Amino acid sequence: MKVVTTIADMQEARQRLTAPVGLVPTMGYLHEGHLSLVSQARAENPSLVVTIFVNPTQFGPREDFKAYPRDTEHDLALLEKEKTDIVFIPPAKEMYPPGFDSWVEIAGVTERLEGACRPGHFRGVTTVCAKLFNIIQPDIAYFGQKDAQQAIVIKKMVADLNMNLKVVTLPTVREPDGLAMSSRNTYLNPEERKAALVLYQALTLAQKLWAAGDTDADKIRREMLALIKREPRAKIDYVSLADPETLEELGRVKTPALASLAVKIGTTRLIDNVVLE
Amino acid sequence: MKVVTTIADMQEARQRLTAPVGLVPTMGYLHEGHLSLVSQARAENPSLVVTIFVNPTQFGPREDFKAYPRDTEHDLALLEKEKTDIVFIPPAKEMYPPGFDSWVEIAGVTERLEGACRPGHFRGVTTVCAKLFNIIQPDIAYFGQKDAQQAIVIKKMVADLNMNLKVVTLPTVREPDGLAMSSRNTYLNPEERKAALVLYQALTLAQKLWAAGDTDADKIRREMLALIKREPRAKIDYVSLADPETLEELGRVKTPALASLAVKIGTTRLIDNVVLE
Repeated sequence: MKVVTTIADMQEARQRLTAPVGLVPTMGYLHEGHLSLVSQARAENPSLVVTIFVNPTQFGPREDFKAYPRDTEHDLALLEKEKTDIVFIPPAKEMYPPGFDSWVEIAGVTERLEGACRPGHFRGVTTVCAKLFNIIQPDIAYFGQKDAQQAIVIKKMVADLNMNLKVVTLPTVREPDGLAMSSRNTYLNPEERKAALVLYQALTLAQKLWAAGDTDADKIRREMLALIKREPRAKIDYVSLADPETLEELGRVKTPALASLAVKIGTTRLIDNVVLE
Repeated sequence: MKVVTTIADMQEARQRLTAPVGLVPTMGYLHEGHLSLVSQARAENPSLVVTIFVNPTQFGPREDFKAYPRDTEHDLALLEKEKTDIVFIPPAKEMYPPGFDSWVEIAGVTERLEGACRPGHFRGVTTVCAKLFNIIQPDIAYFGQKDAQQAIVIKKMVADLNMNLKVVTLPTVREPDGLAMSSRNTYLNPEERKAALVLYQALTLAQKLWAAGDTDADKIRREMLALIKREPRAKIDYVSLADPETLEELGRVKTPALASLAVKIGTTRLIDNVVLE
């Protein structure tokens, strides 16, 4: 496993890889969700690149960029075990040198949900992904369904800008009790960890109502909201039942529909989603 | 010479080209300025792709998108003579299908000069160039110095977003009397054609003043303005003496400096520039 920190070294190393090249872009602090992407990418491609980059431009000024958990040594051990070919860990200055001022912006789907709560977030995500795709030139890039809107936005960017790669989304990996794996779960104290279950419970409720024949999206959203409000540690950012391509809120649920939510548990903001189908 | 109109056909044709691939992106209605790019690209690369696309997104709502001159048959004859390998002429719907909403935006250098006069212009230019670069994957792309700011903006995009190609700028080609070649010169009637010389005369004046030891940028700009104002058909958009990288206006001229201007002759907006060095 080769660890590279400069763009020039990454580009040089890329030239010696056998195609197809699989890429898993991460912000590190790897958990089983990341590892499911890495192991699928490993199985599907002769070459595997993983990036670890806590991307400053996708964090708002009051968000947790500085606090975001980091453990590069542990990440590298995990990636070594997965037989990763190259790990690209650039410092922020390598990706954003002085005078940097070019941005990839997707309109429409970025304006809702996470985009509405976190202005500028997706501009940071799409810009850094465009850069990583240009540097690494993967044939397939792997993203987790946990960040459903992110995957939708990146697929739209790749299609609209004719980027020469395939984007694959893999299922959310959950703890045994249902909590979606997230590097931010580490922020939760034991009481909050219990309270955080409310996200998955609300999504499970939506699935049950839908399976029982409910198609009134407002009613399903109301019941989800009511369930979450019973948890005193929870503060709701949004609860959504939307078209999984446009992210427009539905009046009547028709499959597939994306049930998604963002909830603060204490000071920790968590997101999760399920697809009704 | 192969003429292709769909992105899929272009991508397929690209796979059979021998690297390095030279690209000359144009809006058609080719003149000797374009042909100097084509012939240099031909000489430097085993494979040559030329694109003809009047890009709607780089025209403002009150600009000349519809009137912009087109003569594909003549263009193809010229490109055939230059031994072009592939001409890519996509219809607008191929490049901007319904729902298209992804943009590449360069801040800073796009806010001055042409960017200030033509809001959204450079967003259209960088977005279409990003798309063409992704589709065609050239090793070298050739642009004319006549659109000096465009070349600067594209170089910045390529550097900031780590696009995997080299951008080359070639000198402005002029008519014998000094008028810079431009597809828009076709809009000029005989009187306007004479009046249009004022652009080059003002730039020549700047060169002379600089060569004679003048370093006061304000004074040089004032003399250029005075010269242009003596031409009754001319209406000035801007006259600039700027740093050729940042496009910041200079107080004191130091080389290299970019002397550039935009002037309307009748209803035809023309631009030109020279580098003082």
